[in-house]
Formats: sequence, C-alpha cells, structure tokens
Amino acid sequence: MSEFFGLDELIAVALREDVGAGDVTTLACVPEDAVSRGVFRVKEDGVICGLFIPQRVFAALSPVVTVTPLVREGAAVKSGEIIAELEGASRAILTGERVALNLLQRLSGIATRTSKAVSAVRGTGAKILDTRKTTPGLRALEKYAVRAGGGHNHRFGLGDGVLIKDNHIKASGGITRAVASARAAAPHTLKIEVETETPEQVSEALYAGADIIMLDNMTTEAMAAAVRFIAGRALTEASGNMDARDLREVAETGVDFISLGALTHSVRALDISLKF
Amino acid sequence: MSEFFGLDELIAVALREDVGAGDVTTLACVPEDAVSRGVFRVKEDGVICGLFIPQRVFAALSPVVTVTPLVREGAAVKSGEIIAELEGASRAILTGERVALNLLQRLSGIATRTSKAVSAVRGTGAKILDTRKTTPGLRALEKYAVRAGGGHNHRFGLGDGVLIKDNHIKASGGITRAVASARAAAPHTLKIEVETETPEQVSEALYAGADIIMLDNMTTEAMAAAVRFIAGRALTEASGNMDARDLREVAETGVDFISLGALTHSVRALDISLKF
Amino acid sequence: MSEFFGLDELIAVALREDVGAGDVTTLACVPEDAVSRGVFRVKEDGVICGLFIPQRVFAALSPVVTVTPLVREGAAVKSGEIIAELEGASRAILTGERVALNLLQRLSGIATRTSKAVSAVRGTGAKILDTRKTTPGLRALEKYAVRAGGGHNHRFGLGDGVLIKDNHIKASGGITRAVASARAAAPHTLKIEVETETPEQVSEALYAGADIIMLDNMTTEAMAAAVRFIAGRALTEASGNMDARDLREVAETGVDFISLGALTHSVRALDISLKF
Amino acid sequence: MSEFFGLDELIAVALREDVGAGDVTTLACVPEDAVSRGVFRVKEDGVICGLFIPQRVFAALSPVVTVTPLVREGAAVKSGEIIAELEGASRAILTGERVALNLLQRLSGIATRTSKAVSAVRGTGAKILDTRKTTPGLRALEKYAVRAGGGHNHRFGLGDGVLIKDNHIKASGGITRAVASARAAAPHTLKIEVETETPEQVSEALYAGADIIMLDNMTTEAMAAAVRFIAGRALTEASGNMDARDLREVAETGVDFISLGALTHSVRALDISLKF
Amino acid sequence: MSEFFGLDELIAVALREDVGAGDVTTLACVPEDAVSRGVFRVKEDGVICGLFIPQRVFAALSPVVTVTPLVREGAAVKSGEIIAELEGASRAILTGERVALNLLQRLSGIATRTSKAVSAVRGTGAKILDTRKTTPGLRALEKYAVRAGGGHNHRFGLGDGVLIKDNHIKASGGITRAVASARAAAPHTLKIEVETETPEQVSEALYAGADIIMLDNMTTEAMAAAVRFIAGRALTEASGNMDARDLREVAETGVDFISLGALTHSVRALDISLKF
Amino acid sequence: MSEFFGLDELIAVALREDVGAGDVTTLACVPEDAVSRGVFRVKEDGVICGLFIPQRVFAALSPVVTVTPLVREGAAVKSGEIIAELEGASRAILTGERVALNLLQRLSGIATRTSKAVSAVRGTGAKILDTRKTTPGLRALEKYAVRAGGGHNHRFGLGDGVLIKDNHIKASGGITRAVASARAAAPHTLKIEVETETPEQVSEALYAGADIIMLDNMTTEAMAAAVRFIAGRALTEASGNMDARDLREVAETGVDFISLGALTHSVRALDISLKF
Repeated sequence: MSEFFGLDELIAVALREDVGAGDVTTLACVPEDAVSRGVFRVKEDGVICGLFIPQRVFAALSPVVTVTPLVREGAAVKSGEIIAELEGASRAILTGERVALNLLQRLSGIATRTSKAVSAVRGTGAKILDTRKTTPGLRALEKYAVRAGGGHNHRFGLGDGVLIKDNHIKASGGITRAVASARAAAPHTLKIEVETETPEQVSEALYAGADIIMLDNMTTEAMAAAVRFIAGRALTEASGNMDARDLREVAETGVDFISLGALTHSVRALDISLKF
Repeated sequence: MSEFFGLDELIAVALREDVGAGDVTTLACVPEDAVSRGVFRVKEDGVICGLFIPQRVFAALSPVVTVTPLVREGAAVKSGEIIAELEGASRAILTGERVALNLLQRLSGIATRTSKAVSAVRGTGAKILDTRKTTPGLRALEKYAVRAGGGHNHRFGLGDGVLIKDNHIKASGGITRAVASARAAAPHTLKIEVETETPEQVSEALYAGADIIMLDNMTTEAMAAAVRFIAGRALTEASGNMDARDLREVAETGVDFISLGALTHSVRALDISLKF
Repeated sequence: MSEFFGLDELIAVALREDVGAGDVTTLACVPEDAVSRGVFRVKEDGVICGLFIPQRVFAALSPVVTVTPLVREGAAVKSGEIIAELEGASRAILTGERVALNLLQRLSGIATRTSKAVSAVRGTGAKILDTRKTTPGLRALEKYAVRAGGGHNHRFGLGDGVLIKDNHIKASGGITRAVASARAAAPHTLKIEVETETPEQVSEALYAGADIIMLDNMTTEAMAAAVRFIAGRALTEASGNMDARDLREVAETGVDFISLGALTHSVRALDISLKF
Repeated sequence: MSEFFGLDELIAVALREDVGAGDVTTLACVPEDAVSRGVFRVKEDGVICGLFIPQRVFAALSPVVTVTPLVREGAAVKSGEIIAELEGASRAILTGERVALNLLQRLSGIATRTSKAVSAVRGTGAKILDTRKTTPGLRALEKYAVRAGGGHNHRFGLGDGVLIKDNHIKASGGITRAVASARAAAPHTLKIEVETETPEQVSEALYAGADIIMLDNMTTEAMAAAVRFIAGRALTEASGNMDARDLREVAETGVDFISLGALTHSVRALDISLKF
Repeated sequence: MSEFFGLDELIAVALREDVGAGDVTTLACVPEDAVSRGVFRVKEDGVICGLFIPQRVFAALSPVVTVTPLVREGAAVKSGEIIAELEGASRAILTGERVALNLLQRLSGIATRTSKAVSAVRGTGAKILDTRKTTPGLRALEKYAVRAGGGHNHRFGLGDGVLIKDNHIKASGGITRAVASARAAAPHTLKIEVETETPEQVSEALYAGADIIMLDNMTTEAMAAAVRFIAGRALTEASGNMDARDLREVAETGVDFISLGALTHSVRALDISLKF
Repeated sequence: MSEFFGLDELIAVALREDVGAGDVTTLACVPEDAVSRGVFRVKEDGVICGLFIPQRVFAALSPVVTVTPLVREGAAVKSGEIIAELEGASRAILTGERVALNLLQRLSGIATRTSKAVSAVRGTGAKILDTRKTTPGLRALEKYAVRAGGGHNHRFGLGDGVLIKDNHIKASGGITRAVASARAAAPHTLKIEVETETPEQVSEALYAGADIIMLDNMTTEAMAAAVRFIAGRALTEASGNMDARDLREVAETGVDFISLGALTHSVRALDISLKF
C-alpha cells in the first residue's frame, strides 16, 4: 500500500490519542505473555475497505500479531460474515482494537455507501465522484475507500485541478475573465472546470473554453437541457446536494459525473466487531 | 481554547493535505490584494460547534482575515441563519474555506445529534455519553462537540478509566479475577467499570466491587431489572447499539448513563455554506 | 515494551542532540568494520531498570550490535556485577554509549531509590507513590522505573485523576464547592482527591465526598489523627516533603499511600560503565 | 533566549505529556474567566536559573498570563525569597504550574550545585566543567544552567571536540595511533583531547601531540605529578568521580579544568513553590 | 507569502543544522544587547528572489530585527546595488546570516537563470518551464523562483499531471495502451502528456488522444516537423538537455513550451553579501 | 551509513513533496504486480556519490526493489558507464525515480567538482575545504559528498569551530578583543580562526593568538607574504571567491587550506539516467 505514505504516522497519532498514559485495564488484567485468537466479523451487509489497517495497527504495538484477511478489498459481504482472523499477543490486540476498528469501520462505511451510489447509476454513462469534503488527515484513505466502492476521485486537493466556483467568479469579475486568467496562469497540465447554476452561466463557461462544466443545484430538466446544449464540447458534472436526489434520474440526463459530498462528509461506520 | 493543544497542527495537516502544491484556481483568478466580505450560513436546523475554527484556519493563511461569530458555541440555530461574518483577504478565504467548513460542519453535526439525544432523555436522570469511536486525530474536538451538544464524555482514552470488556474477561479468567487485578494494579485514582451482558455477570461484577457496571446489549426489561438489583451500589451505563433504540425508554429504566457510539462514528455533517 | 510508544523518538532526539554533526572522534580513530565486545558493569549496589534501552539505542545506529541482558528488570545487583554483555560494530557502540548510559543510569537510579523507600515501609499497608515531578519527555520511563523499584504510580497526568489542590480550592471558593464542581463536570470514571492541611479541611473533604484525601505537610501525630477520623471512608495519601521524613513512622499512621516527589525530581544516577 | 531553539517544542512535549486528555480538575473547579495573582517562592537557599521558562509555559496555554522575575538569572537567593510574581488566567496557571516548576526547579538545582563547586575552587586557576551526562532532550538547558552557576561547558556533543577515551584507544590500537588518526581525519577546527590513567599514557599523549590531556581517576599526587610533567604543553582536565573528591585539593594540583558528571546526572531539584 | 506553508519549518531545520550546539563565536564575541545596521548588497548582475526570507530567518532568532527590502521580487539588479537594509540585534543577525543568504542566493540564482532563458525566447510563443529536478524540500520555493524569473511551472509533483514517459510506456505496453489506461483511471481534471522521441511516437501519441506531446531529445528539424504534423491538435513541449541548446532556435520551431531541468538542478547562487 | 540520522526523514519529505496526492500516471498505466529491471547510467564523466540513496528511496515505497551498486562511493566513472542495476516493483521504481536521481545527481555533482579542485592542488600541501554555503536540510549529505570527492570539511555549523569574521570584528571592537573574548568564553575544545583581509589584520590576529588565520580576498602575492609572515605559527586558509581563481597558484603560496563555497552553493548535477 505504498500509496499511503503517512499511514503509519496516522496510526501513531491515533494510538497516542487513544492509549494516552497507557492501557491501564489491559496492563492490569491481561498477562504479558497471553496469546489470543480472534475474528473480525461484520454485523451488517456492506463493502469492506481497509483490511490492511489492523495489521499495521497491531504491528505498532507488538511484532507478534498476525491478521489474515479472508476477503479482498472492495468485497461485498453479508451480516455475520468473518472478514479476517487474527492471532497473537493479547495485550497488543486489546490495546489496538479500537484504533483498528475505528479506521476499518469508517472506510468500509464509505465503500458501502459509494457502492450503493454506483449501483444506482449502473448502465448509464455516469461515474460517481467524491469531493474534498473529507476528514482532515484522512483524505487519502477516504478517497481510496471511494475507489474500493467503485467510485472515482475528483481533485485530491486545490493543486491538481482548476475549479472555478461561485466565490471565485465573484472575486474575479465573471466567468469569462476567470477562465482566461486560469488559462494564462494555471499549470498547463490541468483542465479547467467551471461551476454554473443557470443556462446563461453554462453558455458563458462553454464559450470561455471550460474543459468541464459543473451543473450545480439544477433541476433534472435544467441539467438535461444543459447536457444537450453542451453536446460533448465539455465534460459535465452534476453537483449540489446530490445525496438527496434520485441518482439514476440524474445520471439519465447524460452527465458524465455525479459528485457526492456525503460519501465522505456524512459517513455511517459499518458495524464490525473483533471477538476472541 | 487552550484545551486543544494540537489544533493548529491539525489545521496545518488539513491545509497541507487540501492545498497540496498550491490553490491554482485562486492564485490564477483572484488578485493578491483582493478583499471580500462573506457569511457562514446554516442550511438546515442544528446546533453550532467549532465557530472558533475558521478564524484559526484563515490565520494560518493570512494575518488579515477576521471572522466574527454571531452565535455562541452550542447555540441551536434555524436553517438560513447567519452564524458568522467574515472579511479579509479573498485568496486566504477561498483557499481555507473547505478546511474550515469540513471541521465546522462535522463538529456541528456531532453537537446536533448529541443535542437530540439529550432532549430525548430530558427529565430522566440519565446522561448521554460518547465513546472512543471517534475519528483518529480528532478525538479532543469531537468530545468537545459532544459537550457542546449537552452530552458528557466517557473516557478520553485507555489511560483515564478502567473498563473491563468481554475480551478482557476472556483473557484474564473471569470478572472477579479481572476486577481484583485491576484493583491491585491500576492507578488508585481511577474507578473500575465492568461490561456485563447477563444477570449473572451483573451480580458477579457488583460483588467483585465494580464502581460502574455497563449493561451491554440488554433488553429494556433486563436493564430495568439490573438497575433494580444494583440499587445504587454502583453506577450504571446502558450500551450496545443504543443508536437504534428508543432512548427515553432506556433512560426510564433508571440507568445513570447511556453511551452512543454513533454520536461520533456516524456523523452527518451539518450543512453550512460560506458565501461572499 | 509496547507501553513506550515514543521511546524510539526519544532515543532519536537524544542521539541527534549528542552526536550533532557527527562523532568525529570515532569516525577518525575507529575503522568502519571494527567489531568489539564489551560489558555493562555496575559500580555500586542498586536496582537495575531500563536494560532494554541500550539495544534500542544501538539499533538506531547499526543493525549489527547485540546486547544480552544478564539480569531481569528490577533486579537488585551488587557493585562490580556485570548486568549485560554486548557485541557488534565498534563505531555504533562508541557513538551510542553515552545516550544508552544516560538513560539506563537514570532509570536505575530511580528504581534504586524507590526500592529503598519500599523497603522502609515493608509490612505496613502503605504503598509508595511517585508524583508528576518528572523530567519533561521522560515521564512514562520514569514512572516505569518507579514500578520496577516496587513503587506504584500516582496520576500519569492531569487527565487521569481529579486532584483538588490548595490553589484550586482558592480559585473555586472552598473544598465543598470544588468537590461538587468536580462531581458534576469531571469524567465519572475518575475518583476525586482533595489536598488538606488541617483537621478542618480533612473533615470538609470527607463530608464533601472526596474519594481520596491527601494529608499534606502534617506532623505524624496530625496524620495519625486524620487517618483515625477518616476511618476507611476515603483513601489517604501522605504528602509534602516526605523525602526528609522517617517513612516507616509515616506509614505506621495507617495511611494508604505515601507520595515522594524526590523519586523522580532528585535522581542520583546509578553508576554503570560500558567497557570493551 | 534565542539560544534555545527547541524550547517551545520541549514545553509542548511536556504539556502534552502532563495535560494528557485535559486538566479535568481545573476545568471542573475553576471558572473560565477567573484571574489570579501568585508568587514563585524558593523554599531553600540556592541559585536561580530558568526564570524565563514559566512565561513561555503559560504563553502556550493563554495569552493573558504575565510573569515578572524579581531576580536575575544566576542570582543567589535565600529560603523564603520571592523570585517572581505572576498574574493572569487562573486556569492556565494551574494547568501549566507543574511543567513550569519541573523545569525551573531542575535548572536551579543544577546552577546551585555548580555554584558550590565553583566556590570550592575559587582562587585556584581551575574551571569547573560539565560533561555529556545530561538528560536526553535537555542538554542545551542543562549546560546553560551550568553556566548560570558559574561553570564552563565541555563539549556540547560528539561533533564539537575530539575526545579519545579508553574504548577508542583499545579500538584504534593505542594513543599515538589514535591521535595521528584524529589529526588526519577530524576537522581542523577542533582540538584533540586524550583520556589517560597512568603516567605512561600521559607521556604518550603529550608526545603524540594532544592539545588537552584528561587525567582520569588519578590520586591527587598522581595528578599533581602529571601536571608538573606536562608543564603547560597541553591543557589538563581532572576527571573521574570528582563528585566524591575534595575539589579544592584537586584544583590545587594546577589542573586547568575539573569536570563533574554529577552536575547534571544527579540533580537535586531546588525546592520552589507557586502560591496564589 | 501564504503559498509557502512549510517555510518556517524549513528555516527551523536550516537553523538547527547550521547553529548546532550554539553560535559559539557570536555568543563569545558580541554583547547580548548589541545592535547593528547592515545592508544586503549584490555582487553581480541578476534577478532577485526571496527577499522575504531574511526577515523570517531573523524572526526565528529575535523579535527585534527588521529587514527592509529596497527592490521588489523579480527585480533585475546591477552588481553593487543594495537590495535591502536591516537593523536589529547583532547576535541574531550574525547567527542567521548564513541561512538567510543560502536561501536568498539560491532563489536569486534560479530567477536569474530563468530570466535569461525567458529573454532568449522573447517574441516567440514559447514559454519556459521548469521540471521536477528540484532540491528535496525546496520545491515550492524553487518553482516560485522560476516564476519570479518569468518562467512557468510544469507539474508540481506526480499528482497534478499525467506524464507518460519512456519507462511508463515500456511498463504498460505501448503509447496507445498507456494513454487509454490514463484516460480510464487518472483523475478527469488532469491533461495527459506523452513523451516521444520519434515521428512514429508523435503520431501514435496524437492519435491516442494525448493533450500534450513532449518532444524529447529531438533535433531542431525533427522538432519543427513534429510541430507541423501536430498542427495545434495538442500542446507541444521541447525537452531533453535543452540547457545546452540554442533556446531561440528551439522556440522558433513553434513549440508551446521548453522545459529546462538545469533551472533548478544546476543552480549557480547569485553572489550577495550582508555587511554591517 | 549511520552518520546520516535524518536521511529517511529527508527522503520522506522529498517523496511527499514529489508524489503529492499520488503518482497518477504510474497508478493508471502500470499494473500493481509489474516487475522491471533497469540500470543507472552516467551520461558524462564524473565522480559518483550517494549510491546508497536509491535503495533507501525505493525501500520507502516497496519492500521488493533491490539496487546493486557496481562502483564504490567516490569512484571516477566515464560517460556511458552503468553504475548500478536495479530490479523490483515497477510502480515503486517509477514513483521513486526522480527523488532518487535528484539526490544522487546532486551529490555526484559535488563530488565531481570537489575532485577537480583536489586534482588541481595535488602535490602541494593544500587541502580543499567546503563551507557552510550548503543547501538547507542537506548539509550532512553535501559535506559527505565533498569528502567522497577527496576534499575535507570545514565547520559543520556554528557550534563546532570559532570563526571570527568581519562583522564579528566590527561588532566586538577589533580582532584582539574578539580573540580574547573567544578564548575566555568559547569551549576550550575549539580552535579559534580569524578572518583577515590586510597584512595589519594578519599580524594582529597572529599576536592575538589565533589558531587559524583566514586570508580573505587577497591577491596571490599578499597571500604568499602572509604565509611567510605567519611561518607556521598558525594554520592558514585561503578564502574569498576562490572558484574564480587558479587553485594551484593559490596552493603554491603555501596555505594549508583553500575553502570553496561553490563546491556546494553552485552545484551542477551530474547527468545520470535510470532506464528500464
């Protein structure tokens, strides 16, 4: 998982935060040389993501804990299914359990929700995208979970995509001027996306040369009209409280992408337990 | 806010993660000396928490942004209400907006949900507690949001409370033995809590001298019976998928505390926008 | 030693601090491929603590140094005794020697002093406690050394125990009020301790419901009277310049705990040498 | 105090370590807007060092605490003397008190002990030196305290002085060869010191061209003879358990320096209290 | 300069590295309260970049040093010209001088070289680009210096642009396949650039749908032919040892961009002195 | 390479900076299980330094990349020569390539330039020295490269040598006074060097007792005269824009050292490629 440079640091932060002055319960109640076997079991249907994490958490506490995943990343599982077995130093397992589960449950929650959105639009050409509405410090993991659930990633951050939003338009004096500025000054390796809310803005963005046009907070009809008007001359992205919308209906307007903030900003952790 | 030592570091992590190689859109489209005024507006009813955060985020980017909160921490607000005004360097505001909102929306989401749980049990003696099911790196903030919503905090981490759970009981050879070990070895400043699932375990925990008894995954009737049996000889805490329960019914069993993992592990961000 | 998360970081700090721009003497005088054998020998009687540290220090400098402890943690040793053997890259040993010894000698000094205090009260019911008067950055290690010497740990920090001291009492308006505030607002998992200096304060603390009463700077007679008055209704802790007192006499008053700041704030390093 | 780059980091480490999940006592008992006045008072005679530290500690917790030193760094004070006044946010003072005192007391303890050693040799030409036997992470502060007490600093670390010790001599094949290696390979800006234990070693070191000769574990007579033999052709340093020696007698042998490990490895904290 | 998040950290690293155990010369020779005035003077013609850095360096050492730039960022200056004045604590200035100059001279060196390259192609449509051949840890600053010298930035890193190079082509089985993979899996906000060395590769890249085609190590004639063939259907970038080429001749082939690794990998520091 | 404590941290910084949000090209185009073989080949004559770095870079990305150096550190190589082979995970190699090369090329560039300077003075007694004009964060590596090229290191930083420069002389009131201050206050393990520009200063420095005299910005004749005057009573160092001078002519004046800032402040990276 070389894509997650900072994972061990994040785990260290989480362990320090959780263990604090020491796991007084475990140190008091469990002998130093005790060894246990246990399982990770899901307690509701979902999509699994982050199964490599428990091993990394326990490794930070003891060299002798082994976690054996029984399903692959992104697998759909049923309530009651065992997704991994583990064996090793009881103290390390008890001390690291919560940190391991907190991450595993969150990522699986994201993958599960993404998977549902992807299913909803299956067969249309639309792809499900995430946003930058992620948890501070967890963006790489959360965007990975979106991919595990079958979604695609929008910008990782402000540096790898030009997205001219309403406040930029106000601050720069209009769409045409903003696109021209971006064309002149932003890196030539990046496409230019413009957020629009009205047919006039769609039109202005298109003629200004936007590569991607975001259709924000539009009715399904307005969106469909915009897609017809754009007619492939730019990519299109439906956005704006999409969580509350019928995604299939949106997808059938012909948009290329639907972005959903709730995939990461309103996560419901998948219920997973660790039992000896 | 001296209670959050690491807040500026967390903000720095979040900004690095989000800004990456630079906010190419803003740098390209917005003049360096542009100044804007704007407002934070809630787009649904809720409880506000974290209003001191945007100021700290923008301060990391520019000395000349001022955020003026219009409501106090923990205030209940209505959809459409303006909760803060801001004014200052347009670039800093645009670059920091997402990080500021990501934190503010999450904390307000936690406070809102906590507030609903607190309302549900109002008038009973029960207090709403959080758990350790928090986001890695954000525990202090998330537990603060629980307090802002009217809830109380359970252990901050493994070092400030003894909580003997099922896996500890298995690993140490039974409740009586585990409590005795904890009494002998854990710091004398900490109370001892034991997780129980059956009347036999409740009884064993009480006679072993537990200070707090967690009633885990019990029916309302079983819980009420346990509370009557304990009869004030230990504090009682209802736990185990409480999110799906009728909290008032649980509270009326007479338990002292109800702990809800979902307060922090399944947050729905409160919808808040920043508009120029 | 999973209880010391930050040990490798501390060792890194110490090595950077000590090695600076490079161990110019060793680099100049000792061939890169030289290998040496040596021993750690104590030069006075004492109790050993921290024998796992040299291995960790040398490992930061070279993969090929092996340290073999010959005694266990907490062992009482005699002057002249060899406590560990080592073998490996001469350069790494010479460069890491001082950092390894600085930590090993300090921890053994703490364990030795603690052990003497524990011996002084053996047979009474009193336990020897440390305090928060530790070295910045070394608290976990120093409190571990107290345990290695047979002592017990008081609070690790301000988060894992409520201790209402004289300045808190002044700032909050009296013992009764302070205890009530703590009962209402501090986590329910923590006991409440109150510092008292007079019989009136002892009485007020007891009736306010303190779980632990600290008897601070009292004569032996006053302490004995307080213990009799409290009569098991709260735990008792003797405190206040105990380093200068006859610990057995204090213990025989019947107090549950005697806390000694000097265990950690006035350490005499145990004399240990590393010789090839 | 620009010489202590890492001081704020050290204070942050110490505060995190001490405050942990939060100062539950102070948060519960002391109102957020309470303000207090207090004094730092010494409870035994000594030399003060580190008076700039409390201000830095409190500043990490609150912008509104002011500490006003009443004596200068290195001042000799009498038991009962007030050395600083402070005023400001009660919470910040109570939360930071222990960290501030832990550092202030340790540095003052070092300065006090150094001052006694300096007095013992006053009028002879000998200077009192410290060693590298310091606390990991605190070397710069501890060496500063030695200076505040009137002593001088030996090497800060392995990079700013060549000191060929017994293990180097064994590993490199003799004094003459070690000095030649150092002359050839070590930076030309550094002097070369050699540790000797016998007259033969002193002679070999001198003829090998050592700039400084350490007389280690020698009797006073042997030391005096060595000083006479060297006759100013190299600087001389008395070393080896000097803490147990009559320093004046050692100084009167004519050595240039006397180094004392105990100045920093066996510190007795100066008793200082903070009272409202 | 909010675009340089990590600048203060970089300065801290540089100061620690340079100051080490303390600036012994300055501490010994210069009184603590000495104040000096001085100037930064260039000793050769060039373009200035990084004038905000000395202020930041000195601020890390003392609150009372003021640096007043006399020219703007990116200004062309003549040998002998004073570019900034400074006044304040002599110790801080002397201790920080080297770090301040090391950065200022390097950035000015980059800006100077970039400026020459930009001049060479003035009037053609070609823009001068940098590469990722920057100094570890200094990329943001070095790319800023390129902009200060009139150049443009290529990718900041591997995350903000798709650039399919020869090794990627080998590892993925050809240009067409690599472009298709990138189209399917890379973020839709990024353009796709392909490195080509032959007319066949240019053609394959164009038909595969590359947005940008890099013409690597081609003769001027080959480059001109490729530009004519591409005919505006993709952007073109000349690359490959351009430092040794006649840039104007290259530019006149009609390429859109010329990238020069030497702008940052082979910097000649601009000679600048700080004199009291 | 235990001398480079921070190397893995530096590599981590460089990788984060370069990889950013992820190597989108490689992730898109190269299968996760692809394996490649490749070589590092020099494209011009030079001296190799830093061959241990690529292995460390790739190890940060994957456990299964092996780099086998074919030449030793400091080896002189010819254009076209293969200096190392590598084999392993294609993704890790492609992602880490630039960071590995950036460091390897820079260090080899420094070693190459140093080697040329050393050759120029071969047979004279003069040694080539570096300065503190290094890249922030890379000093240890760059000074190591100077040694690999046959040069010697001047001070590592301000803490391991006293060097009284013109600004110190101005701030302290003259050479004699500055040397006396340094003698009294600087550590006795350090030699004292004084920067001089005129015969009068040389004379004053010598009589003040300087151990090393820097001859700064002098003509060859003035330098020769100074060396004759000093006559071995102090070491001598030629300095001041030596990059532009005939080094042999300078060396033949009899100076002990010639220091060259350009060795590190104006590096030309050695051209090295990594090809599959």
